[in-house]
Amino acid sequence: MALITVTFLGPAASFSHQAAVESFGTSVELLARPSFPDAFASVQHQEVDYAIVPFENSSNGSVVQTLDLLADPAGSYPDVRVCGEHYLSVHHCLLARHGQHDLNSINKLYTHPQAWGQCERFLSEHFKGVERQDVSSTSKAAEIVANETAERSAAIASRFAAEHHGLDIIEENIEDKDNNTTRFLVLRNQNSERTTRLPFEKVKVPPTPSPTARKTLISFTVHQNAPGALADALLIFKNHGMNLTSINSRPSQRTPWQYVFLVECQMAPAYDGKEAVAEILAGLKDATENSRHLGTWNSMGSSGAQ
Amino acid sequence: MALITVTFLGPAASFSHQAAVESFGTSVELLARPSFPDAFASVQHQEVDYAIVPFENSSNGSVVQTLDLLADPAGSYPDVRVCGEHYLSVHHCLLARHGQHDLNSINKLYTHPQAWGQCERFLSEHFKGVERQDVSSTSKAAEIVANETAERSAAIASRFAAEHHGLDIIEENIEDKDNNTTRFLVLRNQNSERTTRLPFEKVKVPPTPSPTARKTLISFTVHQNAPGALADALLIFKNHGMNLTSINSRPSQRTPWQYVFLVECQMAPAYDGKEAVAEILAGLKDATENSRHLGTWNSMGSSGAQ
Repeated sequence: MALITVTFLGPAASFSHQAAVESFGTSVELLARPSFPDAFASVQHQEVDYAIVPFENSSNGSVVQTLDLLADPAGSYPDVRVCGEHYLSVHHCLLARHGQHDLNSINKLYTHPQAWGQCERFLSEHFKGVERQDVSSTSKAAEIVANETAERSAAIASRFAAEHHGLDIIEENIEDKDNNTTRFLVLRNQNSERTTRLPFEKVKVPPTPSPTARKTLISFTVHQNAPGALADALLIFKNHGMNLTSINSRPSQRTPWQYVFLVECQMAPAYDGKEAVAEILAGLKDATENSRHLGTWNSMGSSGAQ
Repeated sequence: MALITVTFLGPAASFSHQAAVESFGTSVELLARPSFPDAFASVQHQEVDYAIVPFENSSNGSVVQTLDLLADPAGSYPDVRVCGEHYLSVHHCLLARHGQHDLNSINKLYTHPQAWGQCERFLSEHFKGVERQDVSSTSKAAEIVANETAERSAAIASRFAAEHHGLDIIEENIEDKDNNTTRFLVLRNQNSERTTRLPFEKVKVPPTPSPTARKTLISFTVHQNAPGALADALLIFKNHGMNLTSINSRPSQRTPWQYVFLVECQMAPAYDGKEAVAEILAGLKDATENSRHLGTWNSMGSSGAQ
């Protein structure tokens, strides 16, 4: 049988790439895609078995691009389903070429704009006044430094990017906050026979420990000018023993100020999840304009049941 | 008595500036601030009477910077309250200097990155292959073109920016979607005597028509690992006759995966709103970890009660 294929948001050595390696190991074929819609389209058109996309970060909140593609206002990705998740610890390192280990000699730094803010303490201690160059990703920063020959530059990027681009780690974990985590979602096509036969729980590494809970993601829109419709819809989740773990809303792109709500909920493994999800969907059919089951998967961490 | 002072997000001729002029007219003192936190701080420290900040756009959704400042995880803005709102229609125009009206002679365009995507149809029809230069705002684009002397350039920006920078409008309403609207919130300090004596409803232009509804914004966090806590909190709104019009969640910045929820709700004017808000806040005291009333104001448009 052909290798399992997994697409991630490029460039190579990005945090998405790292999440893919951590989730699937190295015995799968990993394919970079340049944009979020490309990653979704490759699953919808069954060009790949799985995609892995960032969903939320513990400091920055939801990833709007992923929410908008899951909300799918144009109906472009009807068969894309969430089948798993992965929590990635975000750590930044100071990287340089071999022989460039003297902090004081470095006169130029490269990284993604967001990373400057996340490493403020370290930068103000060691690199006051040193030139900073914004680039499109931390992995791109590592690549630039790796390809330079004469400059005394350094990049702020991950250990994973250092290994990929052959850079040395001068200083590790230079971020201000030590618990910055991004949650990724694993996507498959619900019509794919291959991922039905080889579900994510079986191909992922390490093998899944017994899951503490199952999560479900459902999207819906409510009729406008229907008082209380949103509260009524949310009550359906509660009435079927589901705890809401997150709510997001995105513009429906059809009517101004109409929203697609994305509700994530969680049940204990002892509870019969399949039946509860079916009953919630039946209830939402009456209470909402339309709704879609976007997937049910094993919880891999504590996103804090609410 | 000294003039009413209103702060907005600069630069001059920004959409926030336009919203301030549309809301307050020209007989107030308008002051540009360079950032969202600056605008909030100037209200908290009573350096100005009012601030006006973007809250959500009908196509792009919530403005995360404003949500995070309202969620106020560090308690920096305890006295900032929402006291009004304004809906601004977003229209883009093609602007050039006097005598540069020939579309075919223009060889360089300036605008904010988001505006390219919003005017795709017009651009692909008239400006295929023409050089595009990203700038930090549409008003900045207009300023650059106004200050050039030799170049045959044009800017995509608002009619308001054209008037401010003395540019001609070559083509109006070049945006793809004709109902792109941004909702702004008006902020005051709850301890300000001036804005208590001169409330927003009295100073705004034109005078408020009788409001169709009153809106209220409340933030809260729920205890982690308390099953059903979010649904219970939302039920309190419903039980007091309030329709939820929007829900947003932002990281609490204290515990990973804990969220501050920002819930906007609406009641009919006939209903006794003050009492309902007080009762909701009393109910939330038991059901949540903490909650804050962020303001109650007259609805100015149809954000679609749900």
